[in-house]
Amino acid sequence: MLRVAIAGASGYTGFELIRILSHHPQVELTTITSRVQAGQRLDAFYPAMKGHCELVFENTTPEVLTANADLVFTALPHQAAMDFVPNLLERGVKVIDLSADYRLKDPLVYEAWYQPHKTPELLAQAVYGLPELHRQRIRPARLVANPGCYPTSIILPSAPLLQKALIDPKTLIADSKSGVTGAGRGVSLAVHFCEVSDSFKAYKVAEHRHTPEIEQELSGLAGEPVCLTFTPHLVPMSRGILSTVYATLREEVTLDRIDEAFASFYRDAPFVRLCGRGELPTTLQVRGSNYCDIGWRVDERNRRLIVVSVIDNLTRGASGQAVCNMNLMSGMPEELGLDYAPWQP
Amino acid sequence: MLRVAIAGASGYTGFELIRILSHHPQVELTTITSRVQAGQRLDAFYPAMKGHCELVFENTTPEVLTANADLVFTALPHQAAMDFVPNLLERGVKVIDLSADYRLKDPLVYEAWYQPHKTPELLAQAVYGLPELHRQRIRPARLVANPGCYPTSIILPSAPLLQKALIDPKTLIADSKSGVTGAGRGVSLAVHFCEVSDSFKAYKVAEHRHTPEIEQELSGLAGEPVCLTFTPHLVPMSRGILSTVYATLREEVTLDRIDEAFASFYRDAPFVRLCGRGELPTTLQVRGSNYCDIGWRVDERNRRLIVVSVIDNLTRGASGQAVCNMNLMSGMPEELGLDYAPWQP
Amino acid sequence: MLRVAIAGASGYTGFELIRILSHHPQVELTTITSRVQAGQRLDAFYPAMKGHCELVFENTTPEVLTANADLVFTALPHQAAMDFVPNLLERGVKVIDLSADYRLKDPLVYEAWYQPHKTPELLAQAVYGLPELHRQRIRPARLVANPGCYPTSIILPSAPLLQKALIDPKTLIADSKSGVTGAGRGVSLAVHFCEVSDSFKAYKVAEHRHTPEIEQELSGLAGEPVCLTFTPHLVPMSRGILSTVYATLREEVTLDRIDEAFASFYRDAPFVRLCGRGELPTTLQVRGSNYCDIGWRVDERNRRLIVVSVIDNLTRGASGQAVCNMNLMSGMPEELGLDYAPWQP
Amino acid sequence: MLRVAIAGASGYTGFELIRILSHHPQVELTTITSRVQAGQRLDAFYPAMKGHCELVFENTTPEVLTANADLVFTALPHQAAMDFVPNLLERGVKVIDLSADYRLKDPLVYEAWYQPHKTPELLAQAVYGLPELHRQRIRPARLVANPGCYPTSIILPSAPLLQKALIDPKTLIADSKSGVTGAGRGVSLAVHFCEVSDSFKAYKVAEHRHTPEIEQELSGLAGEPVCLTFTPHLVPMSRGILSTVYATLREEVTLDRIDEAFASFYRDAPFVRLCGRGELPTTLQVRGSNYCDIGWRVDERNRRLIVVSVIDNLTRGASGQAVCNMNLMSGMPEELGLDYAPWQP
Repeated sequence: MLRVAIAGASGYTGFELIRILSHHPQVELTTITSRVQAGQRLDAFYPAMKGHCELVFENTTPEVLTANADLVFTALPHQAAMDFVPNLLERGVKVIDLSADYRLKDPLVYEAWYQPHKTPELLAQAVYGLPELHRQRIRPARLVANPGCYPTSIILPSAPLLQKALIDPKTLIADSKSGVTGAGRGVSLAVHFCEVSDSFKAYKVAEHRHTPEIEQELSGLAGEPVCLTFTPHLVPMSRGILSTVYATLREEVTLDRIDEAFASFYRDAPFVRLCGRGELPTTLQVRGSNYCDIGWRVDERNRRLIVVSVIDNLTRGASGQAVCNMNLMSGMPEELGLDYAPWQP
Repeated sequence: MLRVAIAGASGYTGFELIRILSHHPQVELTTITSRVQAGQRLDAFYPAMKGHCELVFENTTPEVLTANADLVFTALPHQAAMDFVPNLLERGVKVIDLSADYRLKDPLVYEAWYQPHKTPELLAQAVYGLPELHRQRIRPARLVANPGCYPTSIILPSAPLLQKALIDPKTLIADSKSGVTGAGRGVSLAVHFCEVSDSFKAYKVAEHRHTPEIEQELSGLAGEPVCLTFTPHLVPMSRGILSTVYATLREEVTLDRIDEAFASFYRDAPFVRLCGRGELPTTLQVRGSNYCDIGWRVDERNRRLIVVSVIDNLTRGASGQAVCNMNLMSGMPEELGLDYAPWQP
Repeated sequence: MLRVAIAGASGYTGFELIRILSHHPQVELTTITSRVQAGQRLDAFYPAMKGHCELVFENTTPEVLTANADLVFTALPHQAAMDFVPNLLERGVKVIDLSADYRLKDPLVYEAWYQPHKTPELLAQAVYGLPELHRQRIRPARLVANPGCYPTSIILPSAPLLQKALIDPKTLIADSKSGVTGAGRGVSLAVHFCEVSDSFKAYKVAEHRHTPEIEQELSGLAGEPVCLTFTPHLVPMSRGILSTVYATLREEVTLDRIDEAFASFYRDAPFVRLCGRGELPTTLQVRGSNYCDIGWRVDERNRRLIVVSVIDNLTRGASGQAVCNMNLMSGMPEELGLDYAPWQP
Repeated sequence: MLRVAIAGASGYTGFELIRILSHHPQVELTTITSRVQAGQRLDAFYPAMKGHCELVFENTTPEVLTANADLVFTALPHQAAMDFVPNLLERGVKVIDLSADYRLKDPLVYEAWYQPHKTPELLAQAVYGLPELHRQRIRPARLVANPGCYPTSIILPSAPLLQKALIDPKTLIADSKSGVTGAGRGVSLAVHFCEVSDSFKAYKVAEHRHTPEIEQELSGLAGEPVCLTFTPHLVPMSRGILSTVYATLREEVTLDRIDEAFASFYRDAPFVRLCGRGELPTTLQVRGSNYCDIGWRVDERNRRLIVVSVIDNLTRGASGQAVCNMNLMSGMPEELGLDYAPWQP
């Protein structure tokens, strides 16, 4: 049994980790921490968990987290993660960090979008934890930077197209729509039921901090710099992200070549399901699961490709993907503990 | 491995059965039928199931259903079930019927609320499949009548009180609130998103057909006839039932005796979680699970007890409970395949 | 033109007042105040109002409020209202208070449910502003206590029954369900979209502070003390309250007498619409309006009457009713500025 | 008083017309028709209207519609409208048609996207009823083709940019998101509450029939053919459309020129509210109103402009705009009967 701990376990991401790990057949969840909830039982805070987890939130310190763990998930705000992760690594545990702090390779890019990085020397060893792109490098990693929810939903539908040079990278636009859990469990007017219900809005247009990690990964695939226009929107639903990705096809690219690119890129990916040309997925069909479902369609009048991807932002966009990375880092099957059907309806 | 089939598998109840059974460690789901969808792949109809079930809907005939099954779930409309179940039993399979057709012991009561019964001779052998009440009789049964969703949510919070004679049965009122999956997957103006969203209503007040099965079971517990006022309401949510049960306390009944009655009645019930006095559950905390969570509070000014129960109407109120009955009828642990945490949020 | 001001105008109730008054043909809204938003333009805070109101929030002081007003609406928290209203009255303006501070006649009852009252001497002159009960006393009043949302939804369906002695007051139960605007615009986990959506719960069972004002008014109608069991619930919708009221019929009461009691009591009430026996209303059919729609049904097996009422909690349950009271106090037609159709869908 | 009739009044669009017209100060609504509901009272079908309209649905025939009307709104399906409108015009009434049948100038384009046109000779006299573009031609028109909901939400944010040649028309993409009323009141699995709630999807990508009318109007403004990529999505909400419009800026275009283009184009438009650069609107802030609110932002890294528009699909996207057209055709002020504040929240 792998012994694991979760730092910052009281939010939606932390809870989703607890939910998945409490049923993982080869994991013992030993420790959950929360600065604010320290001392409280998990099942008092989340009555749903009664009978499934008897843990009590402890204080978030390196000592507590590493006392009984071989691997630690850090689900802390960015900046806070940076203060913590080096300490954990020094104590010999493996770390999967769900913040943005170790996703970018270039500390100057991090500084441009966030603020100065305190431990830039760790960036080289951190692996960007998107299994479909970096499976082989994740397996031996000691520090995995778990991707953001929007980036997961945008990189996966774009990757085969850029790798095979089927689209013009200068024309790439990602119009994404997210459920409200993406904003976290913190309270604010922006997540008040009556401000969200029966409403729809865009936010952080062309300035969302998930932009540089998408560009880093897509540039690597394209072999040239990719500069994306990215527009997030808020949907009155709890879970799910749908990204509509637009790009102009390069000359002579046929529909069959697009289909083939997707099929070959995801041939061995257990968590990507291709709907195919013309069939478009809904967020509901992946809810609660680690799947990314992808469909596409060509606007032939404009030679523009439209790819639609859906994920569950808490599972594939955060905690499910983190467990998948844990499986890979621990020599377990990639799907272990994650191979259940989506929640319907 | 137990081989099972589902008759009428294309609705929400049938799908929920498929979802649970596709992960049950000791079951092989061999056959799903649907009159309307016959010939279609399940995962074309429910894309969520891609990779989890490769079955194709077949025609709903006794031959198809019993060809490769030891046990059949019938998720057909009432009346239709009655035409089918005798055929299945004759062919030697066990049956768990999710319709109302075998829930009532008295064919005259059935006739009064539905219409004349065609196979009243089977009513005596059918067991009402509420495990907390009839666990021992379910184990050897060949025909189990799976309870209705509202009855499950009303009988469980009332049972200990009537068995211990703590309340006056003449004062019993159940004010229930259900999510929209309770109305099934059929289309109608009543389930149109825009007619349901941002609205709330009562329906079938004092005339809902679930009334007699509640009264049958509660009368058995009370040892005297119980005549209930039952008011269902529709909540703009997909899943969940909350029932608010009112009854006047008998004289001299103390708060401690109420607490003890619940604790002792549900001592060995893995799927009932008591919140206790003053703590009231939400439907969200049981979503997607087989739990019934129960809390209560006394209005001391009026000596009236208010008990609040929550279930997931598709899981505990239908398909999860049916799987629980299957486990009992097959000598498996009651919780097998059902012991996962509720879906949050 | 009547000049009016609103104290505490930044919440949902205050905004609803602004919305209605901005289109009232005989009112000039001169002043809106908010301690927190002072200095901000209304249409920056509520972009919906751009082009409809150019007011800027001012500080909440008696001087500001009475400088340009003949009548002031106080939409402040209870306790805060009590500190304010006497000052306003002294300055010669009429006051409609939307808090609980002047609703109860007996300062000891107020103290039992809230805390000691600071200006009990004003309670005698304050009129409980439910027009269907106290229209004649509201007209000359200088201080009107605007009813709570739940009380409005419970008193109206109960009043004719108690006045005509058709039901046994000891059996009265009100099971109410409210949309989330009832909790106000303040932020908390309890109103977080993801905690409310796809969930349903009861809260403050048998201890909600709206109980005594309901009992005060119903006791007055019954001519004997009425002690109510009142259970509020939260519905995942923005607006609306549905109350299901239960009571046992007195002997010899016929269905016709019930129908007649409703018809005669509400003969001249422009804002009560009777659906009649067997027809039950939905909250959607009154959304955004000042109507209370009422339907009823008898559970003949138990001789129990079930009355269902629906209101919009912000309009009829707060600001619309306040404007109705303003109309009465100012000699205008009761329906002026409120006679538009409900919002559908 | 202008006497008006509505053909096909039982759907959401028809009801929205009734709601608005029932309060219009210079209109008498004399006739409403519905093939299916003929003989039924409106307020039995829509209980919300009790007290606001006593009309009974009549059969949809030219005789009935023109007997007491100077102007007829036709809210019929496309094709059905085409059979009706010529008849109405011959009888001397003015017509505002809410279907697609008279929106396209070129019968071959109509045939390509729909089917052969039966009365192409009327296309020349029909005016496309978007007041901000064609106000002067609407005034004397006898036949106005009311724009589609998506087109209204896409043409308005694009018009100033194309007229002033600030963007490259070849790069134009409209990613639109609509509430469920856009699908009408007809029943289908696609609008079942449980299939829509907590889900999000794209549909009819690059093939939606609203595409040609958008291109027709934008081409007219640009003075060159505009060929658009248009992607509609379904949002789990009842009302509202948000369109996110992308286009690459032409060289040398400054941010100030964009701001000026919007300001000058909409200087005298009472129903367009500009949020300005960086301020983006929500659908909620226009709900129930005839406004189109518009904000924009430049992605300077890619020299791409992102414009966000919001409308209420039933009001500005259909019936409110139709009433606005009626006002113009009848010499009334453009805003008459439509000048109320949006519904919040």
